[in-house]
Amino acid sequence: MPLTMTQEVFITCAVTGSGSTQDRSPHVPRSPQQIADSAIAAAKAGAAIVHCHVRDPETGAPSRNVDHYREVTDRIRAAEVDVVLNLTAGMGGDLVFGDPESPLPLREDGTDMIGARARVAHVAECLPEICTLDCGTMNFAEADYVMTNTPGMLTAMGGMMTELGVKPEIEAFDTGHLWYAKQLVANGVLKAPALVQLCMGVPWGAPNDLNTFMAMVNNVPPDWTFSAFSLGRTQMAYVAAAVLAGGHVRVGLEDNLWLDKGVLAENWQLVERAASIIENMGARVIGPAEVRETLGLVKRAPAG
Amino acid sequence: MPLTMTQEVFITCAVTGSGSTQDRSPHVPRSPQQIADSAIAAAKAGAAIVHCHVRDPETGAPSRNVDHYREVTDRIRAAEVDVVLNLTAGMGGDLVFGDPESPLPLREDGTDMIGARARVAHVAECLPEICTLDCGTMNFAEADYVMTNTPGMLTAMGGMMTELGVKPEIEAFDTGHLWYAKQLVANGVLKAPALVQLCMGVPWGAPNDLNTFMAMVNNVPPDWTFSAFSLGRTQMAYVAAAVLAGGHVRVGLEDNLWLDKGVLAENWQLVERAASIIENMGARVIGPAEVRETLGLVKRAPAG
Amino acid sequence: MPLTMTQEVFITCAVTGSGSTQDRSPHVPRSPQQIADSAIAAAKAGAAIVHCHVRDPETGAPSRNVDHYREVTDRIRAAEVDVVLNLTAGMGGDLVFGDPESPLPLREDGTDMIGARARVAHVAECLPEICTLDCGTMNFAEADYVMTNTPGMLTAMGGMMTELGVKPEIEAFDTGHLWYAKQLVANGVLKAPALVQLCMGVPWGAPNDLNTFMAMVNNVPPDWTFSAFSLGRTQMAYVAAAVLAGGHVRVGLEDNLWLDKGVLAENWQLVERAASIIENMGARVIGPAEVRETLGLVKRAPAG
Amino acid sequence: MPLTMTQEVFITCAVTGSGSTQDRSPHVPRSPQQIADSAIAAAKAGAAIVHCHVRDPETGAPSRNVDHYREVTDRIRAAEVDVVLNLTAGMGGDLVFGDPESPLPLREDGTDMIGARARVAHVAECLPEICTLDCGTMNFAEADYVMTNTPGMLTAMGGMMTELGVKPEIEAFDTGHLWYAKQLVANGVLKAPALVQLCMGVPWGAPNDLNTFMAMVNNVPPDWTFSAFSLGRTQMAYVAAAVLAGGHVRVGLEDNLWLDKGVLAENWQLVERAASIIENMGARVIGPAEVRETLGLVKRAPAG
Repeated sequence: MPLTMTQEVFITCAVTGSGSTQDRSPHVPRSPQQIADSAIAAAKAGAAIVHCHVRDPETGAPSRNVDHYREVTDRIRAAEVDVVLNLTAGMGGDLVFGDPESPLPLREDGTDMIGARARVAHVAECLPEICTLDCGTMNFAEADYVMTNTPGMLTAMGGMMTELGVKPEIEAFDTGHLWYAKQLVANGVLKAPALVQLCMGVPWGAPNDLNTFMAMVNNVPPDWTFSAFSLGRTQMAYVAAAVLAGGHVRVGLEDNLWLDKGVLAENWQLVERAASIIENMGARVIGPAEVRETLGLVKRAPAG
Repeated sequence: MPLTMTQEVFITCAVTGSGSTQDRSPHVPRSPQQIADSAIAAAKAGAAIVHCHVRDPETGAPSRNVDHYREVTDRIRAAEVDVVLNLTAGMGGDLVFGDPESPLPLREDGTDMIGARARVAHVAECLPEICTLDCGTMNFAEADYVMTNTPGMLTAMGGMMTELGVKPEIEAFDTGHLWYAKQLVANGVLKAPALVQLCMGVPWGAPNDLNTFMAMVNNVPPDWTFSAFSLGRTQMAYVAAAVLAGGHVRVGLEDNLWLDKGVLAENWQLVERAASIIENMGARVIGPAEVRETLGLVKRAPAG
Repeated sequence: MPLTMTQEVFITCAVTGSGSTQDRSPHVPRSPQQIADSAIAAAKAGAAIVHCHVRDPETGAPSRNVDHYREVTDRIRAAEVDVVLNLTAGMGGDLVFGDPESPLPLREDGTDMIGARARVAHVAECLPEICTLDCGTMNFAEADYVMTNTPGMLTAMGGMMTELGVKPEIEAFDTGHLWYAKQLVANGVLKAPALVQLCMGVPWGAPNDLNTFMAMVNNVPPDWTFSAFSLGRTQMAYVAAAVLAGGHVRVGLEDNLWLDKGVLAENWQLVERAASIIENMGARVIGPAEVRETLGLVKRAPAG
Repeated sequence: MPLTMTQEVFITCAVTGSGSTQDRSPHVPRSPQQIADSAIAAAKAGAAIVHCHVRDPETGAPSRNVDHYREVTDRIRAAEVDVVLNLTAGMGGDLVFGDPESPLPLREDGTDMIGARARVAHVAECLPEICTLDCGTMNFAEADYVMTNTPGMLTAMGGMMTELGVKPEIEAFDTGHLWYAKQLVANGVLKAPALVQLCMGVPWGAPNDLNTFMAMVNNVPPDWTFSAFSLGRTQMAYVAAAVLAGGHVRVGLEDNLWLDKGVLAENWQLVERAASIIENMGARVIGPAEVRETLGLVKRAPAG
């Protein structure tokens, strides 16, 4: 009943994402080398985990290119700083509809819907310690784009992750996603205790007000580990919220481009600021070795 | 700060729905006449509002046939008992995917995705006092079926309802749907104060635990009117939950087939039981005239 | 995560209390025989537990007379209907202050503050299966009366109850009382799993709004058993609230005198109505044998 | 529905309190000069409000000496830094009981229960911009000490504060205290919008878990201003919690002696750390002029 704030907190840095942010800040890394460098700098600043997407090195457009993931992975594993690698498996579930009078056929421009095995191909190739599993379907952000992850797809992808020995980080964007995550565990697709990321304030998922957040936190099974984040100007506020509620934190350019009003951020700066909040609140920031112990992860050796 | 339970409660009876329940109970009405009769019996038992879908009279399969809606509407308006008519506009947004290795193309069997104007054609024809607006996209129930209502579609449909002078009942199946409902009001698509149905415990939307329910209730704007329901054996429990939280109630065969263990229900019996709970809790069940006053609805005359 | 409503619910009837209600309803029992008769009628109507205070048979004023408790106990144990006996130990902790400019000395009229052993004398004499332990100090209701139960007093009284083998029902009138109840268990004064009554809406303790109620429910240790009640016109609403939240229920004339607007209640009628709500919600009302099994109580034989 | 965190936050420094902390840290100020100096240093570090008790200059024991309050007030008003003065009115309501077998008579050692006018004498003398009003009665901390503020006393003291034109800061140590605060406003004793301090985690009041905190926050009327704090090692965590929930913050040696493990704090250091958390979360720390505007306070001129 006393405040159950986390005493030992890990920070995930979400390095680049798949959003169309690459032209809104020069700091959003595009090439595998830029992504790896930004991740490594974040690790040096205190991130125990780096969560990576890849992009087209030229245009910055989101990419599912396995070679890019390979390069990012190799560069991060070869770095002088230790860090837990977390690769997205969120891509390849995108639907974009026609206009309201003729929603079908799906728009070619934007729709990217592939099979389960293809969605985890880079995970099988790179064997990160963690990969994400977006645990539901919803209208996503402002465009008429649906993030689509059906029960059948989640069962297939989750099963593959479990077989590969890669820990899924379940992304719950609303209360129903968390409910289905528990169902995946109940069904034996995912192992307990699971790891879940509470993704707050992503339109049109769960809003980031504290009543909704606490309802989700109250529904995380006591033996699971959770982290939480929110977007934009509430990113740092959610560092505090997550720690207060007994969770871990995520920051980074995937979710927020700004350090201060008018000042574009670099990933390492966001990690440093998060660490400052955590430590000022009286908790301790832990590193990759302690994260592996907490989550039962096995460190992968660098290639070669 | 004292308990804000509703003192004057209206009951909606959801008469038949679109679920594949027609073979699981002989009481699920199929033909327009059966649906109207069941609705009228529910009204006599105390339902102020009847929420109707239509079905194929032979097979009981869900239908979007405008003639069936016309017949249901005319029969209900011609009945000797007054009741507020609420027609679904939930159909025509169904996606069913291929198996996880080849999710596209969409399955012909099950996918039913039409334009906004077609989705409200029966509403324009029948001009019910209320029609529903499912306010989001999500994995729905056990099959690999996605209930799809994108922002663009909701803006188009909501705008048509506002123009027709039909009050939308916003269906919020998760916290993000309620968020988007507020956005539709902020955008001027829907008028405030709005009417929202909190649909709890529908897999894979918001679970029906009380923490989640209260988070949603706390997020309903104070000037809106809300109702809430849950499914199956928790239907009657949610009658109590909704009243306690300051809302109104919905029961009926769309959401629950059972009166007691082993005893299949008729709609009027579910309404009677709900009324008994409400009255035993110390509140009063109100009728269609008071609902119209509360919600600013105009009674439609029976067809001439 | 699905609604955790109680499936098997016990009803406590709080038969008479110590409030100055005896002149406000002819049904408030005064004499030991009246109290026992009212308790027995409540048991026949479905109460598994009867919670009794005693009063002066003539004036109806609250009393701590051990002989009265003895008579109530004997009569209830000799009845043809089985019921679990719960005696108050709430009396003897009353402070009434002088006016605001001279709060001390305490007023003789109203102050009734005795030692721990005297407060449980009737419990030691009658050995009910349960007795109450008001777990804190607060301004109580409208008069300038303080219900006083200090940590030292609670430790002494709780220890005596544990020694006597009488199960304490912890009365938590606010969130801090529940916190201290856990401390009593942590200190070894009370045994886990404990039994707690969440007393909602008693001025000036916890208000009975659902957010406050859920905060208290979320703070009840998962292995404890809880019940909840509220006062007056919200008594029946809280039957529903308690069941929804996973607890048990209490009704009776101690907390509410009215059956309906303008209709004074008898205890058995309040129990019947509570049972109706519980059953209509789909739960089952259990009897004293099942309560004893659930709470680990040993049935006491009738005297003689 | 988006996170309603406070954008412009004021910090109150609770400089010394009345706890028996003076021998546990050399930084706890005792004499009026020490208290004023510590308050002034806190103001320079960013506190917009200083909340002061006085102590015996020699022993450090809590004191109600009006001359000491006068000196503290004069020194603070004469300082080169502007700050809003908040004096406690919490003393003079202390009861200490005899042992559990003979709780009465009250212990002379510890009991300090005086009339309403005497409790606000220093407020009338010094006319601070704010003074506190502890809004209830409860077991307080570990000793058998009851903090006693009955409805009659609160009505008398609150009325005097209103007459004096001193803004009461209502201290709510549990949910029932907040309820009674609303009653005081409803009764016309206090003016709306009121100012309330949510005092979390003080044994045996409201625990500081987030569910309880949010229940209290949800019960603060929307037009009121609130602040919140917790004790000891959770003091800085509650800086974040209060800002997240839409409130303001309080830190200082009254509530917490430690800066870091093994490092005793000074008041200005705690204020600096709170300011760092607030700013890192993306909010702004405001000063006394903005506080006066927000709360409708009138700046008092220095003496002479």
